[in-house]
Amino acid sequence: MRHLLSILTLSALLAQPAYAHEQQSKALVIQADFAGLVMTGVAYSVSRDLEIFNVRPLIPLYDIAAASDSLAYNAQTWPEGTVFVSVVDPGVGTARKSVVLKTRNGLYFVSPDNGSLSGPANAYGIAAVREIDESVNRIPGSEWSHTFHGRDVYAYTGARLAAGVISFDAVGPLLPAEVIHLPESAGRFEDGVFIGVVAGGTGRLGNIYFNIDRNLWARANANYGDKFEILIRQGEKRIWRGEVPYSRSFGSVPVGENLLFMNSSGNLSLAVNQGSFAKKYGIGAGQDWHVEIRRK
Amino acid sequence: MRHLLSILTLSALLAQPAYAHEQQSKALVIQADFAGLVMTGVAYSVSRDLEIFNVRPLIPLYDIAAASDSLAYNAQTWPEGTVFVSVVDPGVGTARKSVVLKTRNGLYFVSPDNGSLSGPANAYGIAAVREIDESVNRIPGSEWSHTFHGRDVYAYTGARLAAGVISFDAVGPLLPAEVIHLPESAGRFEDGVFIGVVAGGTGRLGNIYFNIDRNLWARANANYGDKFEILIRQGEKRIWRGEVPYSRSFGSVPVGENLLFMNSSGNLSLAVNQGSFAKKYGIGAGQDWHVEIRRK
Amino acid sequence: MRHLLSILTLSALLAQPAYAHEQQSKALVIQADFAGLVMTGVAYSVSRDLEIFNVRPLIPLYDIAAASDSLAYNAQTWPEGTVFVSVVDPGVGTARKSVVLKTRNGLYFVSPDNGSLSGPANAYGIAAVREIDESVNRIPGSEWSHTFHGRDVYAYTGARLAAGVISFDAVGPLLPAEVIHLPESAGRFEDGVFIGVVAGGTGRLGNIYFNIDRNLWARANANYGDKFEILIRQGEKRIWRGEVPYSRSFGSVPVGENLLFMNSSGNLSLAVNQGSFAKKYGIGAGQDWHVEIRRK
Repeated sequence: MRHLLSILTLSALLAQPAYAHEQQSKALVIQADFAGLVMTGVAYSVSRDLEIFNVRPLIPLYDIAAASDSLAYNAQTWPEGTVFVSVVDPGVGTARKSVVLKTRNGLYFVSPDNGSLSGPANAYGIAAVREIDESVNRIPGSEWSHTFHGRDVYAYTGARLAAGVISFDAVGPLLPAEVIHLPESAGRFEDGVFIGVVAGGTGRLGNIYFNIDRNLWARANANYGDKFEILIRQGEKRIWRGEVPYSRSFGSVPVGENLLFMNSSGNLSLAVNQGSFAKKYGIGAGQDWHVEIRRK
Repeated sequence: MRHLLSILTLSALLAQPAYAHEQQSKALVIQADFAGLVMTGVAYSVSRDLEIFNVRPLIPLYDIAAASDSLAYNAQTWPEGTVFVSVVDPGVGTARKSVVLKTRNGLYFVSPDNGSLSGPANAYGIAAVREIDESVNRIPGSEWSHTFHGRDVYAYTGARLAAGVISFDAVGPLLPAEVIHLPESAGRFEDGVFIGVVAGGTGRLGNIYFNIDRNLWARANANYGDKFEILIRQGEKRIWRGEVPYSRSFGSVPVGENLLFMNSSGNLSLAVNQGSFAKKYGIGAGQDWHVEIRRK
Repeated sequence: MRHLLSILTLSALLAQPAYAHEQQSKALVIQADFAGLVMTGVAYSVSRDLEIFNVRPLIPLYDIAAASDSLAYNAQTWPEGTVFVSVVDPGVGTARKSVVLKTRNGLYFVSPDNGSLSGPANAYGIAAVREIDESVNRIPGSEWSHTFHGRDVYAYTGARLAAGVISFDAVGPLLPAEVIHLPESAGRFEDGVFIGVVAGGTGRLGNIYFNIDRNLWARANANYGDKFEILIRQGEKRIWRGEVPYSRSFGSVPVGENLLFMNSSGNLSLAVNQGSFAKKYGIGAGQDWHVEIRRK
């Protein structure tokens, strides 16, 4: 029930040799809740030459779909060779696989294959998937511990890969080139109506967005100022209907007013200038949150 | 309605050659809400040699005055050449200018000129201001996006400047040496009374401070233990009156007691030992929050 | 009233030459609430070669015991030579000592000696303690400020030590090899019953843990699936009693069910799969929160 990011173009542009240096130094990006410093310590112990970035993502505990979105979104501007470690792992210690996903644009994602990799796989494409061989890619002596794979397996493996201590091949055995996918769909345009779902954006800023991307929206031939009628329903229940101008940016409408715009990831979006659309109208996200958009 | 930081002295001392190395490496400091990792990726893509620091500042969404305070406060200990990128940009995509402010002590602030630069300009002085020429200092191919200048313009320009890919001159055309200023005032001493406003500090710790700095306060000839009578009013309405000892530090009074002290940015301040003065008495900040301080 | 971490083994393994490079570069880890960027600036001004990590720990203001736990926990994976700076300092400006603790495994902790160092000292052992000589290890010109030692003394001293500007000997005079200790106890096994206290874990995840470590728990000869009867009381008041399976990991029981497990720091722990045990049953931590565990 999540979005398709139209961000390959941006990432590819940044990766052009004119902008990226061809040094050895690789970046390791750790997204972890409270345990980030522990995982960073593992990485630094593996190699003091690594550039290690650690951030506490604003996602709820146990929320795999949020992790998937967050990983895909955050990775959009990083150069080829960057390794991302993500630890949303409610199934830790059970039978889900620990993997490294290599994407078509050369990023690496070290994560449980539990849906967290759905977003990155969709956004960047799958080049290969390897299962982490824990007989070599796990902190020696940590085998008694079963509840902190972020420290014992993921940070360790991610750091070794980023630092060049191991190559991608040495991560472990090759798996089929696929990952667990979260349910999602693409919007469509039928009989003059754009039909889709609210794919996300109900969090901090509340700028909700739809699974309607730039390519699809181009069929609207919309100019800034054009009015569109929007209906949002949850299942069959109508939640909100309104008329909104297609706008360049938040400041195109007065503070507190609604606007329809193309967001920075290339998804059609609804916002309130300096407010939260999601909060204002009680909007949620998911396959059952439907939207219809037609010209006024 | 914000404060004057008396911190030039500290910053200048740290900048002395005895403490600062004269290497090429420059620091890029990114203050961004949730989008920090995306902006950091831009910077790292520009140059893997940059030292990139990213923090999520504890400021409310859209709060330009808080951004201004935060920028000025956080920059106090960084060496000449450091580039700060700040993105509180409710007017994104509209007619406010994107600029780089160079201060008299050699720091650079990349930000919309919407008041965010008021604090840094006051604290560090204006050497020059240049408007960002987006025909060269914007991620190529990002022109379709109008709602994430933090990624497309500011992080990109800040990184290029910090890494030496561009010089300050190449940022763009020189503007008049001024920035949008937020309303503020300095305290004064008249007929034995210090008169000022609550300039800030109503946030996390709740140690409120006034626009009465070290220089001005010196006229009190206050010794630790001397009692002062303090009146705080909002407009004409009296909010709090009390008698407080001028103290060296929080621990100078029992836990839970009030103290008047000189804070670490050089502003006269009121606190509760291990408590929040702002919360305890319902104090706000701004030009209409008046304070009068006289010797008991 | 806090826990004993059984983590020396892990830290020692990571420190093995096979995993740690012997470069000059040392890491400085700053744990600070909102003032992290200011403190990082100090460190960067001291040496641009430092690897500086800054995190805002999830601990309540003024909470020395939480700082102690956090420091000990976060340091577990960092290599010899790493310097940690911690600033939970309600007694700032009063008579508590500012010290650098050197542990037996070669880590350095720069902190007020107010109990914050209790956890690190217990976990890693005390090699030596030196008092910071502020006549040389304090930012020159900052003597007028008494409320931000994190900036003026700790970040400055920690950076100089980590960067090799000063040796440990030059920190200041040697003190007795001890630090202020927070009250704590070890669990015990008597007449088939494990007796201990809830040592922590009542925070974010809510996986409470006891002062019963791996060594002691080994006496249970417990296999996964074995049932244990657990009683938790606060003083004499019974808070919770239940039967729980000893499990490998969260996913070993259905979502929402309780489990008893060995946590990743080597302490016996109670959790809810994808929930918070502390919240579910209203459990607190401390010397008066007793636990008894016996085989069903």
